[in-house]
Amino acid sequence: MELWYTEELVENVRFSAKVKEHLYSGKSPFQKIDVLDTEEFGKMLIIDGIVMITEKDEFIYHEMITHIPMAVNPEIKKVLVIGAGDGGTVRELTRYNTIERIDMVEIDEMVVNVSKEYLPFTACKLDDPRVNLYFEDGIKFVEGKENEYDLIIVDSTDPIGPGEGLFTRAFYKNCYNALTENGILINQNESPYYASVAREMKRAHSKIRDIFPIAKAYQYIIPTYPGAHYIFGFASKKLDPIKDFNAEKWNSLGLKTKYYNTELHVGAFALPNYVKEMLEENAEE
Amino acid sequence: MELWYTEELVENVRFSAKVKEHLYSGKSPFQKIDVLDTEEFGKMLIIDGIVMITEKDEFIYHEMITHIPMAVNPEIKKVLVIGAGDGGTVRELTRYNTIERIDMVEIDEMVVNVSKEYLPFTACKLDDPRVNLYFEDGIKFVEGKENEYDLIIVDSTDPIGPGEGLFTRAFYKNCYNALTENGILINQNESPYYASVAREMKRAHSKIRDIFPIAKAYQYIIPTYPGAHYIFGFASKKLDPIKDFNAEKWNSLGLKTKYYNTELHVGAFALPNYVKEMLEENAEE
Repeated sequence: MELWYTEELVENVRFSAKVKEHLYSGKSPFQKIDVLDTEEFGKMLIIDGIVMITEKDEFIYHEMITHIPMAVNPEIKKVLVIGAGDGGTVRELTRYNTIERIDMVEIDEMVVNVSKEYLPFTACKLDDPRVNLYFEDGIKFVEGKENEYDLIIVDSTDPIGPGEGLFTRAFYKNCYNALTENGILINQNESPYYASVAREMKRAHSKIRDIFPIAKAYQYIIPTYPGAHYIFGFASKKLDPIKDFNAEKWNSLGLKTKYYNTELHVGAFALPNYVKEMLEENAEE
Repeated sequence: MELWYTEELVENVRFSAKVKEHLYSGKSPFQKIDVLDTEEFGKMLIIDGIVMITEKDEFIYHEMITHIPMAVNPEIKKVLVIGAGDGGTVRELTRYNTIERIDMVEIDEMVVNVSKEYLPFTACKLDDPRVNLYFEDGIKFVEGKENEYDLIIVDSTDPIGPGEGLFTRAFYKNCYNALTENGILINQNESPYYASVAREMKRAHSKIRDIFPIAKAYQYIIPTYPGAHYIFGFASKKLDPIKDFNAEKWNSLGLKTKYYNTELHVGAFALPNYVKEMLEENAEE
């Protein structure tokens, strides 16, 4: 018997990976969670039928979501992570001795429990004494917070299901208020390649740009996501991701990375023309 | 009835696109040629069961293979293009009034004829008076040439079938000899993401590095190729793709591009650590 995982990336386009074993299948109050072991990508976490991370390339996502802001402001001490149930973002953050506290707010405890059991390569640092786990709604968690975090990372799924509220104007405004003066907001901001996904990228960026004085976007390549060309938003009250970035300082930390480096830091903000034009448009609500 | 094109990207991984119409199918003395019209990607040229270009994203490939060398040396006058039967590389080159002659050597005339009929968006400038079409083997064509071309572009398929000889040490050496003092060689150099494709990338780069004093690699993102993260080789006798590149001069030409721009030019050479390490390795023959 041959077992294949097939995902409809967008309408009329499919991606398939040969499966060694269907390791886990469960339903939480929020979503359907599956773990597959595949021939090419190793373990895969699938939520509601969409690949979240794979053992083969999660390093790209997790290095790019964390090291870019940490290299812009090495003084970051208090971090809020929203989503990120697989643990990969926290794994990278805990490599910085200078970080004092990481609040991780994941709405779905089952994602964390499944990750701890099946994805130990990402869920390996959740017991770090600086990490506080909250199984709550991240949208509510930031409401009313003021001047508390140096960095907020929105490590979310797509804007459907429980992740939808993480793409609203009200949420971004609450993040702004929750950030310190040097605060940085990083958000998973979809991809320009397929029109239906690009629409969400434009909407989110347009909202963030209205709220934050500095609102940029940077790219990374993750072949197991639809379109492969992915964007993180970098928003801040005053720090610029290039002008305020000190390559020498980051390099002096001696962190070994597989994807990120300080030349790539600058290159990641150099977007193709068609992507720049999309992000400059005034998107629909 | 639903018609789907399915490609085995590498062993155990498949990509599928819904087809509107199978427009053409033929067999040349060298390979099988198909043209599909697809819902998401528009027209697709398929050779021996592998996507060569799609109407949706060919601009990424063709802009990156041409504008990078042209921006490094705006004095380029004589160009040799090997392969490139779809015409897209020539289309971009003919935008430079400063180019005096383009020799295009495509082994398979049928690819050009099929492209002219079904892919007019790429095969639209082959009748430019500066273009000379040779339906010959590019490997033989460069043999014995000396100090003739300012730029050689190897716009090849993968190193299987008729493209295999374009990945050999002897061929690269002949390209070196055929280039002028300021000459640049650009080659399609595969992708780091999947191990079987990365092996070819490492082999080709290793050979070019042995022959050319300057041998760099730059990246672009093309979601319809296996692994999406693709590499062109930039090799030259003395021009450095960053130090000898004049952004202002290229921008003064006023060429409108959808992917390439002068910030991205620099960013494209900033490779992830895992790719840099692969390219620095001493690859097998």
